[in-house]
Amino acid sequence: MANEFALISRYFKRPARRARLGVGDDCALLDVPAGNSLAISTDMLVAGQHFFPGTDPYRLGRKSLAVNLSDLAACAAVPRYALLGLALPEANEAWLAAFSDGFWSQADAWDVELIGGDTTRGPLTISVTIMGEVDAQQALRRDTARDGDALWLSGCTGEAALGLACLQNSDPAGEWAGALSAALTVAQRQQCLQRLEDPTPRVLLGQRLRGVANSAIDISDGLLADLGHVLQASGLRAEIELSQLPCAPALQQLNDQALQRRCLLSGGDDYELLFTASPSITSRIQDIADALQLPLTRIGTLEQAVGDQVGLIRLREADGSLFHPQYRGFDHFGFDHSAVTRDQGEKRE
Amino acid sequence: MANEFALISRYFKRPARRARLGVGDDCALLDVPAGNSLAISTDMLVAGQHFFPGTDPYRLGRKSLAVNLSDLAACAAVPRYALLGLALPEANEAWLAAFSDGFWSQADAWDVELIGGDTTRGPLTISVTIMGEVDAQQALRRDTARDGDALWLSGCTGEAALGLACLQNSDPAGEWAGALSAALTVAQRQQCLQRLEDPTPRVLLGQRLRGVANSAIDISDGLLADLGHVLQASGLRAEIELSQLPCAPALQQLNDQALQRRCLLSGGDDYELLFTASPSITSRIQDIADALQLPLTRIGTLEQAVGDQVGLIRLREADGSLFHPQYRGFDHFGFDHSAVTRDQGEKRE
Repeated sequence: MANEFALISRYFKRPARRARLGVGDDCALLDVPAGNSLAISTDMLVAGQHFFPGTDPYRLGRKSLAVNLSDLAACAAVPRYALLGLALPEANEAWLAAFSDGFWSQADAWDVELIGGDTTRGPLTISVTIMGEVDAQQALRRDTARDGDALWLSGCTGEAALGLACLQNSDPAGEWAGALSAALTVAQRQQCLQRLEDPTPRVLLGQRLRGVANSAIDISDGLLADLGHVLQASGLRAEIELSQLPCAPALQQLNDQALQRRCLLSGGDDYELLFTASPSITSRIQDIADALQLPLTRIGTLEQAVGDQVGLIRLREADGSLFHPQYRGFDHFGFDHSAVTRDQGEKRE
Repeated sequence: MANEFALISRYFKRPARRARLGVGDDCALLDVPAGNSLAISTDMLVAGQHFFPGTDPYRLGRKSLAVNLSDLAACAAVPRYALLGLALPEANEAWLAAFSDGFWSQADAWDVELIGGDTTRGPLTISVTIMGEVDAQQALRRDTARDGDALWLSGCTGEAALGLACLQNSDPAGEWAGALSAALTVAQRQQCLQRLEDPTPRVLLGQRLRGVANSAIDISDGLLADLGHVLQASGLRAEIELSQLPCAPALQQLNDQALQRRCLLSGGDDYELLFTASPSITSRIQDIADALQLPLTRIGTLEQAVGDQVGLIRLREADGSLFHPQYRGFDHFGFDHSAVTRDQGEKRE
């Protein structure tokens, strides 16, 4: 059995390309081109929390980088470097080989260089730190949305949540078990699992939105939760037109509207971009959608807010009435998922 | 009970100082001053693997940053920024308050800015990514040691390992239990625990060694193991004069020479710097020791090596004979700790 250093070297050490110094020393060394800032983000994926322990390691390798690439996308940065921290219960070489294959396939797709990391024994945990480059003046942020901005969504939400529900469906007591086994085709289940386990970070979209969007965030915790972060940071509230929410075939086919809504609004793990822009530049955004062959849909509007209206999200039905769900988004430690959307004047939390 | 975002905000969010954008967006944004490179490193600390689950959270917060600062020290960088990934089994506010106090006390001591992170539920795991600045031409590396270099050690090794043995000593079947309970004073035990749980990163030493040392590494896995990394990277071998190894009072007092040797040579968790320099500049190094009030001791010499002699470490006794331990360093996945030091001509692994 190979030792720790041999394992790291075999699966994760490649010569430095852009970096001055890559894997193999106490620190990596990198330069940031003049005029650019370094954008940096980190995410932890924990077995049993973010993925099932038996998840296909190739897909897990791809996803562990994808969720971080999604953060770079949301700030319009060009991906450059990554660090990989791995806690593994055992030195399982077959698992490591498949995981690293997946990791590299994603890294190579986005020209990301692995410049360092740490490998240790422990409960299966993956910690990726990602770095990219962006002109700080053009970086997209959460706190710069404006009153009157149109609210846009890339792709569609909810399929990953439905994929998760499919996996949980092996438990016949699962909340959504009945609805799912009746509703979905095999191809639809596969599509939902693909969205869950192998999401596509919207890296190119983020870069195209430089100078176009006023704010952006990636949807990891669910549409409502992540929109809430933008609203809180920008001091605004929002109204979403529920009839405008794009709905994938698998979700359309559900005969359980409550489940459909929940997937769309708070499913999480979508890794789409939610962004805001002046309503006057709708055609520019449609041009970007055409160029990327990626649907971009206007789903609502941002509005001025004062006091406890900041962060409020109104969900408007086609008939003009308001929808009041009892959930918002996924929160690892929150035990109160009740206070969610309220009409003007209601008291929050 | 507060939710995830409130927890993060309460304990870990402070306004950005040097960074363009700190905690609270998808990415942090930072600039690197002209002429400098960014030095970056990441370490994971896993409960039950790197620390006991009941470890004082204040000290754990300090150590989680210290072990990363030690990596920056080894490449002579000035600490600047950190990212903190935390997996916690529960949202224990008392634990978080103490942990963050410890983390900030260390961060403030070195002017490190926390610019982002991730908090999730999971087995207690701490993942810190640290960033510093250094002129790439002056950065210290592992692969630049030279034939004939003197081998230097800051402080002394072994106290942390003895501290760990003290903690394990509550198990009367523990390997070192008898020797320890007889040998150490209360003050010595406290000193050893301090070294284990609250190590001092040699940040200032690293910066002083710019232009002085030819290579450097920090000792986290044990003196022999980390020296081995330098030798492998630089294509050299080494001879250590065992009588020159600095030995703390607690280790001197042990009447078990085998235990003493093992702590000194392979204890790990020391976070001292091991560096090499031309033997002609001994007085400059002594000046640095005086200025920092930190003992720096010449413990051996690096020598040319070819073929399987690369990485060889000879341990010379005062009488000229060679010592052959059956260990090298701590390896999370290695199951073969046998092949360690050999005389010239012996076959390795």
